[in-house]
Amino acid sequence: MKVAIQGELGSFSHEAAERMLQKCTVVPCARSAEVFDRLEQASVGAAVIPIENTLHGSVHENYDHLLKYDLPIRGETFLRIVHNIIVPPGVKFSQIRRVYSHPVALNQCRRFFEENPQIERTPFYDTAGSVKMVMEEGLIDAGAIASANAAEIYGAKILRRSIEDDRENFTRFFLLERPGRGARRVVLQASPPRTAKRFKTTLVFTTRNLPGALFRSLSAFALRDISLTKIESRPLRGKPWEYLFYLDFMGHVNDPVCRNALNHLAGLADMLRILGCYPAGE
Amino acid sequence: MKVAIQGELGSFSHEAAERMLQKCTVVPCARSAEVFDRLEQASVGAAVIPIENTLHGSVHENYDHLLKYDLPIRGETFLRIVHNIIVPPGVKFSQIRRVYSHPVALNQCRRFFEENPQIERTPFYDTAGSVKMVMEEGLIDAGAIASANAAEIYGAKILRRSIEDDRENFTRFFLLERPGRGARRVVLQASPPRTAKRFKTTLVFTTRNLPGALFRSLSAFALRDISLTKIESRPLRGKPWEYLFYLDFMGHVNDPVCRNALNHLAGLADMLRILGCYPAGE
Repeated sequence: MKVAIQGELGSFSHEAAERMLQKCTVVPCARSAEVFDRLEQASVGAAVIPIENTLHGSVHENYDHLLKYDLPIRGETFLRIVHNIIVPPGVKFSQIRRVYSHPVALNQCRRFFEENPQIERTPFYDTAGSVKMVMEEGLIDAGAIASANAAEIYGAKILRRSIEDDRENFTRFFLLERPGRGARRVVLQASPPRTAKRFKTTLVFTTRNLPGALFRSLSAFALRDISLTKIESRPLRGKPWEYLFYLDFMGHVNDPVCRNALNHLAGLADMLRILGCYPAGE
Repeated sequence: MKVAIQGELGSFSHEAAERMLQKCTVVPCARSAEVFDRLEQASVGAAVIPIENTLHGSVHENYDHLLKYDLPIRGETFLRIVHNIIVPPGVKFSQIRRVYSHPVALNQCRRFFEENPQIERTPFYDTAGSVKMVMEEGLIDAGAIASANAAEIYGAKILRRSIEDDRENFTRFFLLERPGRGARRVVLQASPPRTAKRFKTTLVFTTRNLPGALFRSLSAFALRDISLTKIESRPLRGKPWEYLFYLDFMGHVNDPVCRNALNHLAGLADMLRILGCYPAGE
């Protein structure tokens, strides 16, 4: 099974893909839209996207894509993000003058750069891609910040482990598939609903622009003791200063209580779409 | 009065600063944190920051800074964002091979780049800064995307006006000042509270991580018919998958109804901070 990810082999998305779909062939994509395009055009069977990080926040571009495309969420997983200084074999720490990585990763290792002012932080398009580049170019005065996986894949060496500022650094990833039968089959392989104890549902809705509209929308869940795990607002295109709301709640769309909540919300919302129902990650 | 902004003279923040504080001297800063640092250290008397755009969404870095620093919001304004192709005088459209601008601006002019595939889009740190650069370098095969103001300030020429994809492109800016007496004096100059018809309040809070906690928090406003204009969630540092909520509501903190709502919310929230109360922008 082919899985599209943004970034190179060895990226955190790659690790998340392997965790959710044990046997898979990863198809690296340069941009996030390409990941969605490939899945929509069925040139891959699934896609894995980062959706939020505990330090950086939500990946808004991917929230926007979830609305634009019709590719259901079929799974989620959480990875602890560990950043390492990675160099070509033979390069010593004292030789490093520049370190390449994705801007978000560079920002999560500020202490390292403060303690090593001789090293320049250099933004690059991808964490694993920066390891690939320093290896291909055979740089002897540069390193990359990426996962241990990336070091292994490109035959590079880890010089400093776990240099991230904050250990509470986790990223949540979604597994996306195409709607329909094929998708269902794959879900069963990935995380069998029959054994999964808890489900989560992600939806997006808009409300009428009236006082109390969001409050009434949330009542659909609160009055039924359904636990919300996330709310995210995004601008509504064409209606300045109005918003879309993305909600995650604990529960399965086929559970009668959740079904009532969704019917209740549908009666209040201008627009409501279920983006996916999937086994909750641990 | 000196006002710190992120970006160069002629940026949209510069225009917003002039609109909110008629007479001011703009102090350009490279990074957003520098804007907050300068105001905190009192090397400027105010700061103007972008907080959200109707297409791009919220400027999350600035939401995080509002929490980290103690610099009250004293005003807001909305600018319609108009992007133009700007070149050094004498350069013809047919000569342009590259266009520089901030990545967000480049993304808002996709149609222009689709219709002109011979022109390469080149990310730069600032819209107005890209005009400054093409002028200083005297480039004859490059242009910049920025405001008409930027063209005027740097003596450049507008070749194509209003090339943005979507006319519903507005940015909301906050005016920040230092807490205390000095600040109050300035507010009165900027937008006299006595004549302003409507006020808005921005706050940030956290809830206990229980089902219905956000719903109960919003009840403080909904049960009093107070209109919320924005809710934004951000990750809570040190508590993975818990969130801070930023709220904007229509009303003045000294209005008895709003005061009751805030007391009600304070009783439910783990943390509550008022970030500012200011005349609502038009």
